[in-house]
Amino acid sequence: MNMRTALTIAGSDSSGGAGIQADIKTMTVNGVYAMSALTALTAQNTMGVTDIMGVEATFLGNQLDSIFTDIYPNAIKLGMIFSAEQVSVIAQKLEKYQAENIVIDPVMVATSGSTLTNGETVEALKKHLLPLATVITPNIFETQVLSGMEIRNEKDMIRAAKNIFEIYGCAVLCKGGHLEEHANDLLYIDGFEHWFCGEKIANMNTHGTGCTLSSAIAANLAKGKKLVEAIEQAKQYLTGAIKAGLNLGEGRGPLNHVYTFSFGQESK
Amino acid sequence: MNMRTALTIAGSDSSGGAGIQADIKTMTVNGVYAMSALTALTAQNTMGVTDIMGVEATFLGNQLDSIFTDIYPNAIKLGMIFSAEQVSVIAQKLEKYQAENIVIDPVMVATSGSTLTNGETVEALKKHLLPLATVITPNIFETQVLSGMEIRNEKDMIRAAKNIFEIYGCAVLCKGGHLEEHANDLLYIDGFEHWFCGEKIANMNTHGTGCTLSSAIAANLAKGKKLVEAIEQAKQYLTGAIKAGLNLGEGRGPLNHVYTFSFGQESK
Repeated sequence: MNMRTALTIAGSDSSGGAGIQADIKTMTVNGVYAMSALTALTAQNTMGVTDIMGVEATFLGNQLDSIFTDIYPNAIKLGMIFSAEQVSVIAQKLEKYQAENIVIDPVMVATSGSTLTNGETVEALKKHLLPLATVITPNIFETQVLSGMEIRNEKDMIRAAKNIFEIYGCAVLCKGGHLEEHANDLLYIDGFEHWFCGEKIANMNTHGTGCTLSSAIAANLAKGKKLVEAIEQAKQYLTGAIKAGLNLGEGRGPLNHVYTFSFGQESK
Repeated sequence: MNMRTALTIAGSDSSGGAGIQADIKTMTVNGVYAMSALTALTAQNTMGVTDIMGVEATFLGNQLDSIFTDIYPNAIKLGMIFSAEQVSVIAQKLEKYQAENIVIDPVMVATSGSTLTNGETVEALKKHLLPLATVITPNIFETQVLSGMEIRNEKDMIRAAKNIFEIYGCAVLCKGGHLEEHANDLLYIDGFEHWFCGEKIANMNTHGTGCTLSSAIAANLAKGKKLVEAIEQAKQYLTGAIKAGLNLGEGRGPLNHVYTFSFGQESK
């Protein structure tokens, strides 16, 4: 009995709601074997990040070598990247090992408002990693940074996503959650536009939603699903995890990643 | 709707089968909200550890502050600790925040054979952390180190566990898996002996079994179960995860942590 496998390359969130912790929970619950290469550690909770420690780029490379030479990941999710040097190492290893199904969540600002990535890293990300991506999952702010265009409405989302696709050649899932009118997400790829209609859910506990969506997409791609279906099901999973209404911590709390399950251990 | 919470303080295993990755999977699948404070990162796969990076003791302390001041853990599992300084910080924070339900897996040697902890750290662990433990879960080798006694059979296990209890005051679950005759585990606490009879399972993929058992015990304690029941159910969970027969990687592969579940996402 074997499982499909997925890898997250991202930072650690000590409070367990975002970063590799959210990714591991999401991938596991979505039925794939989860591995992780750490880019940074944070001392963090639902109210913010109090300390951050980047991982040396060479050490990140060693983690990736250990992973790719033993248990090959069927999909990869990239989250927070700490430095331009890390971007280079990641790009080099992804090319060396011919990685497939690469989902990039270009994390720049956490839900709590903390800025997580500097300008040089963003430039390196654009140049070296976006061209390798199967799909990227920026929110409105990140789409603005990546396209250099201002976004006020859904028409702007289309123009910006088209611009990113034309420069970097990757599919763009632009998440509209921060627009006031709707919570619709746009998938743009080579002239094809697809809108995923979302519902605004009355739950302020949204710590780790971006991590959860991108790692669920990666898990679905690892299982062989096509991109639109992978996104559709990932959004369903995310919506359920928010709606489950977990309430932990003083700030924006985490999701319930296991809401889909009745616990085998519990019912015995 | 709220969940009980648990914290793992341990190292990261990039290949996802042991360390905080195994702990997060185990706690999540066993229905508690999982958090983690990292002591070290490894570049590791099923064949061994190729690189290791300890986390500064002060940074570990910052992670613990972030966790305890926001989402209080109902149980704690301690795994690999990198340095004597880390031991001091952990002991100080556990006392400061009056932590309960502390399960210590005194990791010294990984299943792959790699030595993970130095002598000074072991001495600090004995002095500062064992007295705080609800239960410790050493294997035969670790029980020998902690008690200073040689163990060849089940009688020796009892003597050594009793010795550890009398010096440090913590319950001892001595795992007999490395003895040739049986795979029985002994729980010793204050004159009370309880044997958990195990079955030897024909599966060489046992990467992360120690992490999985200790974090399942912590999850069960977090849910309010008594110690014997928490161990009994954790052993059942572990046995199932081994028996599921996952086969990943070239060396000693990881367990199937989600064997108990039918995947909600899959059946749609």
